[in-house]
Order: sequence, then C-alpha cells, then structure tokens
Amino acid sequence: MAHHISPFAVPFPSMPEVAGVQLAAARAGIRYKDRDDVMLAVFRKGTTAAGVFTQNQMPGIPVDWCRALLKKKKGARALVVNSGNSNVFTGAKGREVVKKTAAAAAKLVGCAADEVYLSSTGVIGEILPVEKLTAALPWAYKALSPQARKAAAGAITTTDTFMKGVTRKAKIGGTQVTINGFAKGSGMIAPDMATMLAYVFTDAALPAGVLQALLSEEVETSFNAITVDSDTSTSDTVLAFATGARKHPAIRKVTDAALKDFRKKFREVMEGLAMAVIKDGEGISKLVHITVKGAKDKKAAKCVALSIANSPLVKTAIAGEDANWGRIIAAIGKSGQKANRDRTSIWIGGYLIAKAGGRNPAYVEAPVAKYMKGNEIEIVADIGAGKAEASVWTCDLTHAYIDINVGYRS
Amino acid sequence: MAHHISPFAVPFPSMPEVAGVQLAAARAGIRYKDRDDVMLAVFRKGTTAAGVFTQNQMPGIPVDWCRALLKKKKGARALVVNSGNSNVFTGAKGREVVKKTAAAAAKLVGCAADEVYLSSTGVIGEILPVEKLTAALPWAYKALSPQARKAAAGAITTTDTFMKGVTRKAKIGGTQVTINGFAKGSGMIAPDMATMLAYVFTDAALPAGVLQALLSEEVETSFNAITVDSDTSTSDTVLAFATGARKHPAIRKVTDAALKDFRKKFREVMEGLAMAVIKDGEGISKLVHITVKGAKDKKAAKCVALSIANSPLVKTAIAGEDANWGRIIAAIGKSGQKANRDRTSIWIGGYLIAKAGGRNPAYVEAPVAKYMKGNEIEIVADIGAGKAEASVWTCDLTHAYIDINVGYRS
Repeated sequence: MAHHISPFAVPFPSMPEVAGVQLAAARAGIRYKDRDDVMLAVFRKGTTAAGVFTQNQMPGIPVDWCRALLKKKKGARALVVNSGNSNVFTGAKGREVVKKTAAAAAKLVGCAADEVYLSSTGVIGEILPVEKLTAALPWAYKALSPQARKAAAGAITTTDTFMKGVTRKAKIGGTQVTINGFAKGSGMIAPDMATMLAYVFTDAALPAGVLQALLSEEVETSFNAITVDSDTSTSDTVLAFATGARKHPAIRKVTDAALKDFRKKFREVMEGLAMAVIKDGEGISKLVHITVKGAKDKKAAKCVALSIANSPLVKTAIAGEDANWGRIIAAIGKSGQKANRDRTSIWIGGYLIAKAGGRNPAYVEAPVAKYMKGNEIEIVADIGAGKAEASVWTCDLTHAYIDINVGYRS
Repeated sequence: MAHHISPFAVPFPSMPEVAGVQLAAARAGIRYKDRDDVMLAVFRKGTTAAGVFTQNQMPGIPVDWCRALLKKKKGARALVVNSGNSNVFTGAKGREVVKKTAAAAAKLVGCAADEVYLSSTGVIGEILPVEKLTAALPWAYKALSPQARKAAAGAITTTDTFMKGVTRKAKIGGTQVTINGFAKGSGMIAPDMATMLAYVFTDAALPAGVLQALLSEEVETSFNAITVDSDTSTSDTVLAFATGARKHPAIRKVTDAALKDFRKKFREVMEGLAMAVIKDGEGISKLVHITVKGAKDKKAAKCVALSIANSPLVKTAIAGEDANWGRIIAAIGKSGQKANRDRTSIWIGGYLIAKAGGRNPAYVEAPVAKYMKGNEIEIVADIGAGKAEASVWTCDLTHAYIDINVGYRS
C-alpha cells in the first residue's frame, strides 16, 4: 500500500497544562503492536461534560454510552479512548465491553462507572478484546501526569499522518484559563472507518448546559463543515470537559458577556482541530474551501456547498488541476436546493468564471490554470436564490485515496 | 490518460426495423474530428413522444426545449442529437442555438420547429458551434434510412467503451410491434459530464399520455436505479417515440390488458439499456447489485440502497475485493433513513455475514473472500425497520475512475 503523507502535516504544538486534567497513554496491544493505543484522562471532581456525536443511525456502543451519561448530568471523572478496534455492531457483547471498561477505570479513579466517558475507533464488527484494554488501564493510571499531552494525542491516532492539537488561552472576567484540544482524523485503520474523534479540555468553570450549548453551536462551522468523501463514521465523537479548576465569576448562560473571549478561543480550537482533520484527509493533495452564497437559507447554502464538496467529479478535477467549472454547476444542480440557473455565478481563486447563466465573456483560462496548481483552492458560487451563505472545507480525490481504501483490512 | 475498456463490453446487437423511423449519422466536426457526432431521426406523421429528464436544477437548454415540446403535445417528427459539446449554462446564446437547430431540421423534414426534439452532450459552458451542426443536417437527411441503427447509436457515444442497444418484439392484440433502444452511458467527454442519454423507438400506436405513463413508471427501476458516482448530469434525457405505423386495437390507458406484453418488453428494453450504462461506468472492474429490505417504504429502501451504492468507502473496498461489511453498516447508517441497528442483517453473495446487530457467529471469511474476486457482486441488507425493498446497480471505484476524471478537458 502506498504511503502518503499529507502535504499539510505540521508538528504537534507545545501546550500548557489544563488544571484539573491528568493524561496518560498506554499499550494494550489491541491491534497495533509497537505503539500506544489507549488514552486515559482523569478529571478533578466537579468537571462538567458536553458531547456531539455521529448522526449515523448505526452508532457505536461507546456513542450510546456517552449519550446516556450526558443525559444523567453527573459530570465526568475519566475518559478512556482506544484505537485499533471500534465497538460498533457488536450487540450484547459490545455492551458488556463498555460496562467492563468503565468499571475498571472507575475502580482506579475512585468514581462511579457512569462518570467514565468512552470512545473506541478501529475495525467494525469485531469484539474489542476488553481484557487487553482493562489490563492496560492500571499502567496508564500510574503514568498519569498533566504533561502527557503529546503521548495522549498520539495514542488515539490510527493512520493519521500527523498528530492534531490546538491550544488557546482565554480570559473570563480577568482570570486566565486554558483550552486544549486533540483530534484524530480521517486516516484509516489499516484501513477501515475514517472515524473522527476530538476532545477539548478546559480549566474554566462552566455549567454543563453552557458547555453543551457552546459545543453544539461551534461544531456547525467546524467539524460539521468538513467532508472527505461524504462517508460518516459510526463512532464520530466530539467531547468537551471543563474542570472548573480556575476561579472566575460564575457563568450562567452561553450568552454571558464575560464568556466572549472564551467563546472566540473555543471556536478557534474547534476550527483548528477540524482544519487539521481535513488537512489529513485521505490522499489529500489540495485543500479546498467552498463558499455558497445566494441561498434561501443557511441550511440550503450548506447543502449546496456539501454537494460540491462531495462530488467525485469536482474532486477529481481539482486533483487534476483542472478549473472544470461545469462540474461545479452540475454539483450545485444536483443538490436539490433551489438555485436560479440564469443568475448563478462561479469564482475560482477570485476569478469570475461564470455569471448570469453563462461563461463570463471576459474569462481567460490561463491565470486560473496557474492558480489550480497551488495547493489551496478557493471556490465561491452565488446561486442567485436568496441571501444566505455557508462555507465548507474538503480535499481532492486522488489515486492515494484509492490506494488507502482498496487495501485489505489486515 | 489510461485507456480502460469495460470488462462487460458486448457487441451492438442486430436490430430489426421500427416502421416509421428513419435514422442517419453525420460528421459535424463539433469536437471530434474522425467520427460521427450527429444523430438524426425522422418520424412518420402521428408519432407521439414522451420524456424523462435530469432532476438537476441546472438543466441544459435542450432539456428545457424538450420539456416545453412535451407540454405542447404536438407530437414528434424529428430528433437531433449531437455529441462533443453540450448546451448547458449558455444563457441566451444557448437558446439561440436550440432554435436554429430545430428550425434547420424542421425545414428539411417539412414540419414545425416545435416537432423537433433535441439533445446535446459534451463540455459544459461552451457555446455549441451551431453552424457546424446545421451544416451537417442536410447530409444526414440525405443519408436517412431505416437501417442506420448502429451508425446512429455510435454517433451519440462519447467515451463509451461499447455501444449500447437493446431490441424486443412485442404483441399488442395479435399485432407484432418492435421496440428498439439506444443509449450512451457514463463515459466522459475528454473528460467532462457523465451524461446519460437514451432513446426508445417503437412502431406501436400509443397515445402520448400512455407512452409517458409507461416511461415514467419504468424509469424508476431502470435509469433511476443506477449510479456510478452520485453525480447527475445537467443533460440526462430519456425520450420515447411511438410511430403508430403498426395497426392494432386502440390503446387508451396504460393499464389496458392488451398492453401487458408490450409493457414487459418495454421494461426489458429500459432495464437492458440502464444495465449497459452501468456496465460501462467509468473505470468499472466489478458490477454491484444492492438490495435493501426491511425499510419503512420503497423510497426509504431506495435511499438506503443508493447510500451504500454511492459510498466511496464501500466502492473502494469492492475494488479491493474486500468483504468489508463494516463500511456497508456505516453507509446504511448515514442515509438518514430509519434503520434498526440491532435487527440489521447483511448478506454478500448469499453469505449471511451479520445479523441481529452483530457478526453472524457462524460467519467464515474464506468463501466470501473468494466470492469477492468475481466480477459481479451481490449485496443484500435487511435494515429491520419495515417491509419495503428496493434494488440499485452500481460499479466499484477504481484507479481507472481517477485516471479518467483527473485529465484535462482538452
């Protein structure tokens, strides 16, 4: 299998500590032999949690588990994530795995099992060897440290070609707080599901309702605005944890003015992680930003943008450095959303290529052909049916994508 | 660019004459230099027409034209189809092209312009050089013959790797009638839109309303049940013409008992053409038949089947001869349709792989791995949410698809 490293790979950033979060990585040997495959995070008492999960109708058992925990609103004391084997489509045995893992972590931490959040990523339909996982947890527990950020972020990767982390400082009423985020992206497990996992940790003190509102809002323009190939995983999970270790004026609503700077930085962390995920899209050679204007509402704008972003014909044209705007027109049209053909305009890299239902008479291909050779491509479409707009990020569709995905699972 | 011939290529069948239809091919040199690129069909007076067109919101100008003609219900006297350049996103100039083409054909045939049906396939956004097209029409007109079926079918192909035709005889009340169909498939124009065009001709005498009802019904399980890559063209067109040259008892309704044999044969022609199109899907190495059972209604079943058929992860797994059923589960889940995870079953090639929300305990991979090496793959999923079922056909996603589609337009 070809080995393809993203041209957008960057080193893992150095990060400050988030007070109240201890991290560790361990080797359970679930699938991988010579690398960490378990991340353990332990939180101080009083930590709140929020989550957003896959919309897939076949969710993994750990997704069911986290959803149930969030409903109970008891708060979070630990997070266990393993790579190498998901826990999806595993029925009663899969539920047993989740219970045993949470119980083992709870015993070590001294908390209840329903304060332990879980994620698993890897091959679908195989029963996770829970004994290997629980046997690794005491080792992870002993290794806990506020400093183990890079090791922890590494343990959750699968075939990511780089580790993904973003950090920000924010002020809440004069108090400085930290926000750290890790993600694993759309690399495949040897190869299997392109699961996306992300975890955001902060030492701010936020009620669970505020944290959830913030997460639900920010996911729309970050993780819900990226697409590699339209395939969604059964285990996609974004969790946020607020330890409350820093003291600042109490925040009661997401609209609280004191939260303004925090919201901005939280958004930067979410968007930074989502960008890192798409920059590691399978087989990526070009990063593509698509903006749709002139839609009847925001939802329609995003639907059209995703229709362009997920069109194999558009994606292969970009891989071929071809400013094939006819394929963009066709992708707009197939979205099913209202568009006015005779008032539609297309820009690539700022060049107006088509307007008023026809090619721009002043359009010259040469500068656009040159622009297409760059590795970041900007597409803007005005569909002439309203005033709403939305943007999404995607990558091109290349031979490397096929290489990565035609291989056997093992 | 790699040259990829479908492994399912078959010779064009010999076809009997359809009384009342004369055909010709001509060379207009619109884009291709050394081959026919225009098809002309001329019909006897009294010929009825029916059509089904792309659902794309950016339809080509000839699609607008044909829709308007069908509304007028004047009948059809001619059909002009060109390859090499579509007429999409061309505004007022494109409308001029359509008018000039119809007028030129009408003058030759001695009919009104609004009795001339039109299709164009090829690159989007370029103005069709109408003078080249109208200059070729007199040559085509002189060459008209009831025998020019293969030449006509060849003129409408683009980068199809084989010509597509199906013929059937049917009885209506003791009278034998003929049904001939041509199609061009999802080869690309050098490369551009994967336009699908199909024309069905019969010498039966059918009122336009009956022909339309028949076409609308049969398109659902034929052309609307195939997908190469989820991209729909702006020019997709299926037209049917009934010349009425054969005399049989009058047919007044599509449900008329005398139409039973004709409906069956008409369906065979439509399904045969659709199968030929998918068998020439870009880069195809395997033909895939997907059936979804246990959906709440037929529409939901088809939506789930198309979600599996259009999943790049499922399609690359099939190209890799991997029975990766986890990707099928994920594709079912992302469709948005109701599915019961814990009652879902998956069969590949008749082997029960998963059931009741988990892997079939009796599942053995070896025979399925062997089955995956064949070039026809059968996937069945029961999603446990109802009693409706639907089937679709697709092909795998291969390096050849990328080769075909990353190339420059010229």
